[in-house]
Amino acid sequence: MLIVMLKEATTEQVQAVSDKIRELGFTPHTIPGSERTAIGITGNQGPVPADLFELMPGVAQAIPVSQPFKLVSSEVKPERTVVNVNGATIGGERLAVMAGPCSVESEAQILACARAARQSGAQFLRGGAFKPRTSPYDFQGLKEEGLKLLALAREETGLKVVTEVMSPGSVELVARYADMLQIGARNMQNFTLLEAVGETRRPVLLKRGMSATIKELLMSAEYIASRGNYDIVLCERGIRTFEPMTRNTLDLGAVTVLRQLSHLPVIVDPSHGIGLRYGVIPLARAGVAVGADGLIVEIHPEPERALSDGPQSLTLAMFEEMMREVRRIADALGRLI
Amino acid sequence: MLIVMLKEATTEQVQAVSDKIRELGFTPHTIPGSERTAIGITGNQGPVPADLFELMPGVAQAIPVSQPFKLVSSEVKPERTVVNVNGATIGGERLAVMAGPCSVESEAQILACARAARQSGAQFLRGGAFKPRTSPYDFQGLKEEGLKLLALAREETGLKVVTEVMSPGSVELVARYADMLQIGARNMQNFTLLEAVGETRRPVLLKRGMSATIKELLMSAEYIASRGNYDIVLCERGIRTFEPMTRNTLDLGAVTVLRQLSHLPVIVDPSHGIGLRYGVIPLARAGVAVGADGLIVEIHPEPERALSDGPQSLTLAMFEEMMREVRRIADALGRLI
Amino acid sequence: MLIVMLKEATTEQVQAVSDKIRELGFTPHTIPGSERTAIGITGNQGPVPADLFELMPGVAQAIPVSQPFKLVSSEVKPERTVVNVNGATIGGERLAVMAGPCSVESEAQILACARAARQSGAQFLRGGAFKPRTSPYDFQGLKEEGLKLLALAREETGLKVVTEVMSPGSVELVARYADMLQIGARNMQNFTLLEAVGETRRPVLLKRGMSATIKELLMSAEYIASRGNYDIVLCERGIRTFEPMTRNTLDLGAVTVLRQLSHLPVIVDPSHGIGLRYGVIPLARAGVAVGADGLIVEIHPEPERALSDGPQSLTLAMFEEMMREVRRIADALGRLI
Amino acid sequence: MLIVMLKEATTEQVQAVSDKIRELGFTPHTIPGSERTAIGITGNQGPVPADLFELMPGVAQAIPVSQPFKLVSSEVKPERTVVNVNGATIGGERLAVMAGPCSVESEAQILACARAARQSGAQFLRGGAFKPRTSPYDFQGLKEEGLKLLALAREETGLKVVTEVMSPGSVELVARYADMLQIGARNMQNFTLLEAVGETRRPVLLKRGMSATIKELLMSAEYIASRGNYDIVLCERGIRTFEPMTRNTLDLGAVTVLRQLSHLPVIVDPSHGIGLRYGVIPLARAGVAVGADGLIVEIHPEPERALSDGPQSLTLAMFEEMMREVRRIADALGRLI
Repeated sequence: MLIVMLKEATTEQVQAVSDKIRELGFTPHTIPGSERTAIGITGNQGPVPADLFELMPGVAQAIPVSQPFKLVSSEVKPERTVVNVNGATIGGERLAVMAGPCSVESEAQILACARAARQSGAQFLRGGAFKPRTSPYDFQGLKEEGLKLLALAREETGLKVVTEVMSPGSVELVARYADMLQIGARNMQNFTLLEAVGETRRPVLLKRGMSATIKELLMSAEYIASRGNYDIVLCERGIRTFEPMTRNTLDLGAVTVLRQLSHLPVIVDPSHGIGLRYGVIPLARAGVAVGADGLIVEIHPEPERALSDGPQSLTLAMFEEMMREVRRIADALGRLI
Repeated sequence: MLIVMLKEATTEQVQAVSDKIRELGFTPHTIPGSERTAIGITGNQGPVPADLFELMPGVAQAIPVSQPFKLVSSEVKPERTVVNVNGATIGGERLAVMAGPCSVESEAQILACARAARQSGAQFLRGGAFKPRTSPYDFQGLKEEGLKLLALAREETGLKVVTEVMSPGSVELVARYADMLQIGARNMQNFTLLEAVGETRRPVLLKRGMSATIKELLMSAEYIASRGNYDIVLCERGIRTFEPMTRNTLDLGAVTVLRQLSHLPVIVDPSHGIGLRYGVIPLARAGVAVGADGLIVEIHPEPERALSDGPQSLTLAMFEEMMREVRRIADALGRLI
Repeated sequence: MLIVMLKEATTEQVQAVSDKIRELGFTPHTIPGSERTAIGITGNQGPVPADLFELMPGVAQAIPVSQPFKLVSSEVKPERTVVNVNGATIGGERLAVMAGPCSVESEAQILACARAARQSGAQFLRGGAFKPRTSPYDFQGLKEEGLKLLALAREETGLKVVTEVMSPGSVELVARYADMLQIGARNMQNFTLLEAVGETRRPVLLKRGMSATIKELLMSAEYIASRGNYDIVLCERGIRTFEPMTRNTLDLGAVTVLRQLSHLPVIVDPSHGIGLRYGVIPLARAGVAVGADGLIVEIHPEPERALSDGPQSLTLAMFEEMMREVRRIADALGRLI
Repeated sequence: MLIVMLKEATTEQVQAVSDKIRELGFTPHTIPGSERTAIGITGNQGPVPADLFELMPGVAQAIPVSQPFKLVSSEVKPERTVVNVNGATIGGERLAVMAGPCSVESEAQILACARAARQSGAQFLRGGAFKPRTSPYDFQGLKEEGLKLLALAREETGLKVVTEVMSPGSVELVARYADMLQIGARNMQNFTLLEAVGETRRPVLLKRGMSATIKELLMSAEYIASRGNYDIVLCERGIRTFEPMTRNTLDLGAVTVLRQLSHLPVIVDPSHGIGLRYGVIPLARAGVAVGADGLIVEIHPEPERALSDGPQSLTLAMFEEMMREVRRIADALGRLI
């Protein structure tokens, strides 16, 4: 059960609802939103009578929620969410395409990517300035210098910048440069970080953890939403399985299930989803065909020289080809790109 | 290394090549094909000099094969294979669509499915007469009675019949009724069965085991081919992962990799790939978009009454809708359906 | 619900119970046992009233069974089963140890293994005569010649022979030589084979499939039991996971769960469970410590020359060391070895 | 290659080595340790000549390292590490036992646990004050209040406190109360957090991520060590697999492999490893038998009332029984407890 308060509800009214919940032997979870407060009820085994609360002053409605994720559930909000990222949308009729290098490496590299992305029809520039790397000895990104280069590329091309934030302490820094904050797969259950981006009002791209279930992904989105940031885009990027020939196993079935269970937009990352350059375009086509709201793809002017993820990066010419092919699929489905 | 003999090579010439291989300290594997003999060489650590063999009488060519699968490898045969199933093809420009119930249950049921499949444009009728079931107490299929009903449906509709064979002892019986023999996921490494269908000249539909790697799937195809039956179609039907919300995780990346490594056609089973009716059509679209050569789909006139796999079976109306949608994807990719 | 008939129940009485079940709209599964018939009831959604049946002539009792596996369930038989293999027991106080090569290769090799196994205290000789191999070009076993060598080694040492049977057609042949029939991991859901060994009265060693759930393993045991062969030993031999450094992931938690859910003995295969020689002894100790009823281990006089599984085979000296170490663990737990 | 500097090496000498590495076209990674600096070399494809560096002033030795993890590798340090936690050791002859509740809930609860742990022979008290929970609506821990209660329990019992730290920003706070910092499974690749605990001189308990490979676990340990904190204990706590009956699959083979590849102590968490109370004691026995350096176990005075992880928590009486049983196993292996 979720008790949604009126925007104008007073602190006392919120308190009264919480007190009532405790009186019934349950636990209230006050979820302060940007606009209005919601109060989750847990500890209840069976259903909680809604009318007990709906008659209380300050209460907008009492929503029974069968899923453990509530704010992001399609039970709570059946119509699909469209996330607006400084003018570019994700989740509507038009597919969102994000392209760029794994890591920002230099001004020349990021500008070449941004121009190619722009020209082929992408609206977003991706690129890592802070890079989570398995080894402490690998290239860790250009950090703030990388953020500045992303901002420079935005200035020239008008693309929106999406880039990863790795720790609560750098959320403010990254949010200063980025249009959209990315939570990487390894941080999907870094709850302190989720709460930190939930406190901002920057849209968030939340990547599925490499062995996260669909439910856990939605629970992580719920963390962000529970702090009042509802502008969340989910990303299927492949899960870890026993198969050694591909880097990950892209779970396109999850896209379908996510769109059934939640109102949030879902995009697909075919690059990490297979980890092999020759497989990226086919999986991009499949991602659009399954009904995703967009794609995020790694491109590089010279993949063989990339400091990270070279083997899965498309050349700029291949990206152009990819866009041609996915446009045909989008047309067939009545979506724009 | 694979030594391919001329069609007219004599038994003595084959023997001489085998002797030469042993003389070098390696192991020969004589692979009697329907048309010509090939001899695989194993036990060699480094490369084997090809010219040693190519000068021997009866030898057509010596092919170095870096992959452990040889006859099914695209190294050995770069052009794609088109499998002809009594006139219906799999692997060419036209997508092959196989539809039908999980289990053959009655004449009325199989005829209803066959007619609907035919009308919507499928060329193959699927349906289990022998059913591998996790529980010994579940419905195990109508057995020969089921095969007869499939043949009856073929007679009326002209669809080709594809049905599962579960044991070496029933290969002959099933081959008497079926146009194509299916090896189910649980039997992908039932090597005695693979050899048995390899001895027939019926085309084989080989489903990927639920935790088989791509390489293991190709090695199982190699078992069939090594007995002289080259008419093999591979099927991606989802793998077992940690995700509990879907029955399996459809691995469309594997389709891309299989088409890279092998010349055999690859089809996709979206029904088992997700196990949820609402996800079948989206995954069917994705399967075509990724580049598969066809689809195999479970349909049922009354899924809620199905004796097996009801929750993932499409109604006949949904199948018609599926065909409309995948036709649009096929068009976009320049393929027929 | 399981209706267990009296030993002296007549065919007519069994028939009457089946008719009653059908009359109620459910499906009867007559399970002919060696001693008495049981009738499983399926198709029922809710509980079936037991007294309806217990009053019928010939009925011993009506057992409600909540698990899908029935005959192998500890609900049906709470006391633990001891399987007697021609005088050697599995499942009692004494731990059963099975040792031998992956493949029988020669008389000298199998005799060397058998003598070492005997001397260190094993009661069973393992060794493959029919080998399921991923590649058709790998050594497939000595077949009947291998069975003869196993019988020869038994004659000299008195060890009981356990060896794999790969197809229904060879059950009779293998049963002629073996004291115990092994169903390999890849055949755990080869239901025709399960039924075939269920028809014999040879004890069966059933290995867990590499991605089989605990429940599926028990359902496969149920297949064998449902044919009247109750002498079944389960074997945990590692499951397939994402970890590339070990061949499999030995699931010792499953041993605990299996012993909770079923009355059947459970043994552990540390050799396949890790696939690395240096890890076999530690995992053998752990297997005994967790409470398994025995071990099955690969040994070889010269592992570096083995035709299969050399990297995971213990030398004969290492096997002696293993026995010393597991004996200490067994002592600590009050079990014999 | 790892260049280890003498303790008395000057900043200039370290700089000279770094310059030399760059001159050769490689990348130097200066790893400031508490006692001496080491410089990792990356970017080299083949071997780097050691003598080039060993002749330079200030260099102690040049170690070729074949593994991607270096400081934690047994190649770099063959003798096993013993971590000293304010007087209690982990990694030596004596097994380390850590016991306590999942979450610190109240003074009465934590004191009851601490006394029972102490009495049965544990040296460490575990207990979560900051709890990573899948749901934002679940109990998140008592936070600093919980830390204070842990300190209180330490004062009374003398047990060392090990507790989780979830974010870089709270490392200082947690380190003020805890004897040992725990990195939870979900944060194993939270690299910013790893670096933060690497900067402290508190011993670290690093839990394996639920789908982390053995290599990734060692790479995460390398992150911590690369910041100069070498007091790291690894923990196997079960991995995520397809098996639904157990919460995780405890990978005891990994313990063996970790002890082969690294000099760091390894302990086992049987509670999370199976998630079922009845399985904890058997897996604790197995963990000791496989050769782990200790155990970490969840206990609770009233598991059925626990705010988290009740189903897998041992009662205090069961913990006493566990200690009796593992003591027998430890005795059999010549280890103390």
